[in-house]
Amino acid sequence: MLLQKALDSIEGLYEDMMLKAQLRLDSLTKPLGSLGRLEDIVKQLAGITGELYPSVNSKAVVVMCADNGVVEEGVAQTSKSVTAAVTRNFTKGFTAINVLARHSNAELVIVDIGVDDDLSLDGILDRKIRRGTRNIAKGPAMTRQEAVDAIEAGIGVVGELHGKGIKLLGTGEMGIGNTTTSSAVASVLTGSSVDKMVGRGAGLSDEGLINKIRVVEQAIKLNRPDPDDPLEVLSKLGGLDIAGLVGCYIGAAAVRIPILVDGFISSAAALIAVKIKPEIRSFILPSHGSAEPGSRAVMDALGMEPLMSLGMRLGEGTGAALAFHIVDAAVAAYREMGTFDDANIHKYTPL
Amino acid sequence: MLLQKALDSIEGLYEDMMLKAQLRLDSLTKPLGSLGRLEDIVKQLAGITGELYPSVNSKAVVVMCADNGVVEEGVAQTSKSVTAAVTRNFTKGFTAINVLARHSNAELVIVDIGVDDDLSLDGILDRKIRRGTRNIAKGPAMTRQEAVDAIEAGIGVVGELHGKGIKLLGTGEMGIGNTTTSSAVASVLTGSSVDKMVGRGAGLSDEGLINKIRVVEQAIKLNRPDPDDPLEVLSKLGGLDIAGLVGCYIGAAAVRIPILVDGFISSAAALIAVKIKPEIRSFILPSHGSAEPGSRAVMDALGMEPLMSLGMRLGEGTGAALAFHIVDAAVAAYREMGTFDDANIHKYTPL
Repeated sequence: MLLQKALDSIEGLYEDMMLKAQLRLDSLTKPLGSLGRLEDIVKQLAGITGELYPSVNSKAVVVMCADNGVVEEGVAQTSKSVTAAVTRNFTKGFTAINVLARHSNAELVIVDIGVDDDLSLDGILDRKIRRGTRNIAKGPAMTRQEAVDAIEAGIGVVGELHGKGIKLLGTGEMGIGNTTTSSAVASVLTGSSVDKMVGRGAGLSDEGLINKIRVVEQAIKLNRPDPDDPLEVLSKLGGLDIAGLVGCYIGAAAVRIPILVDGFISSAAALIAVKIKPEIRSFILPSHGSAEPGSRAVMDALGMEPLMSLGMRLGEGTGAALAFHIVDAAVAAYREMGTFDDANIHKYTPL
Repeated sequence: MLLQKALDSIEGLYEDMMLKAQLRLDSLTKPLGSLGRLEDIVKQLAGITGELYPSVNSKAVVVMCADNGVVEEGVAQTSKSVTAAVTRNFTKGFTAINVLARHSNAELVIVDIGVDDDLSLDGILDRKIRRGTRNIAKGPAMTRQEAVDAIEAGIGVVGELHGKGIKLLGTGEMGIGNTTTSSAVASVLTGSSVDKMVGRGAGLSDEGLINKIRVVEQAIKLNRPDPDDPLEVLSKLGGLDIAGLVGCYIGAAAVRIPILVDGFISSAAALIAVKIKPEIRSFILPSHGSAEPGSRAVMDALGMEPLMSLGMRLGEGTGAALAFHIVDAAVAAYREMGTFDDANIHKYTPL
């Protein structure tokens, strides 16, 4: 079983290499620790890869696309067909994530993990588990086996990218209704009340927001997932996009590639992965703080602070693609800065 | 008088062009407003430049370097000579700002506005007003005329860069003791107590921190600047680096180039510029939130929220250089994304 094998292969960070990276950082011509979180990023990359000078030149954003049965409850302000339309547009090069991935020199990997349409197109990986989930307000989103299949699809995609030499991953998604499923998952896993976890998604009205809260409350009440069984929470309340992303996090940790969380949906997937195996957290880097209200609670549960505060709520991996620039810059500073020996000055330590 | 002429030439943003940019943003294939602050950045650039498709390809970071007489009070953990040593190192290409400016494709402009050493070197602009300021714990840092001269030097540097075609500016500084002068200036201009505005700078001990607070309190008590006269606050408590940066902000607003604030010192200079002429605020973009404790109060006084939260406290313009990537990405998304007409889907507006 691919999932169990991947989970079993995950180990902690190489702490010896993190210490060596710290020594290098402290030798650079700057006050100790003054590059702040750029230094933390470099140490984490060293700990993940086991390389003193990790390379992040080859990057990819994986975008998991899927439909959600709960859309029939009127939780989104657009019709379900937008999922397929936007997924097709990813192949045309002009969506936000196309531009931002290009701008950060990252490959864009579009995965149909559960779109309710026929998407046999060049540029879309067919990993469809089923054509959309069932309506969580009326029953479980998917079977436990379907959730495992979707996770394994994500693990597989990451494994292929690893084989191609990708060194840094970002996560993204597209799926009308997926802030609803993420709110349900996040509410159960963080123990936060539903009204604090539900937001307007792509732009819901006041009335729509009240309905969305009601639907999520109903879905939780009806499905009664065990909060201590993350796979059950995922299969009963989540989506195939979320499950695919859970697989990406697990796969990245298994092959030791750093992986960036994106917005609310991506962070909910990260939380599931970390609940399944806590060691995975060390392989995940934050990017931005989403404007969705539940984002804060999920990032807190992950013990992560966003690098950027941009008020974005678009998904698609856009925040992760932006954060690639910060990771690149951290590595550049670490590799290219001079040391105190080069600099003809004493260390910035107390006189 | 260059300063007065520059101030007189500053006008507000082109609001008609901001509206046109908003229309373009709303036509792009994404939920309305979902790119968050990337959209605000684009609108601000359109308002500054008067161009519907502003270009930010040509960028520069201006680093103002100067010594501060107050260092003789033991407020820094390194000796004054580090200012000259680091300024020289800027010409060698291996400091943090060298790497980060290169990485964001920005020119680096090193200005000696008051280093207490002879720095006749290729790669350093000689705009020296005097060899360091006087000790603010014993009297005013500089005369009002010296402050005006330093401001005019900054205006001049920006004018030259504008003439060369630079379209986006970042601010930076180097000067041992300049968190002390910035804390003094910021405390007076924001009305915050000194102990909340003083931090450890490059890494002061507990004892050093207590001494630094005492020195700043003494400097304010002795010099008694009028809080409503920002030029007096600057000349009595500031530094030549800060004054040069005030000139950069004024100059950028005068020639209508967007300019990024960096860390604590740079933000203190921005606050002085905005207190001199409030319209300047519209030309300034935030970058990161410095780890210096006074940074928050100054950003609040500017009414600005940092884009990034990286815990950096290095100065040199490093935060501004990082934020260039976000500005670039915002412009790329705005220019390159498709519209709903291209996309074969309806707008993400309520059904």
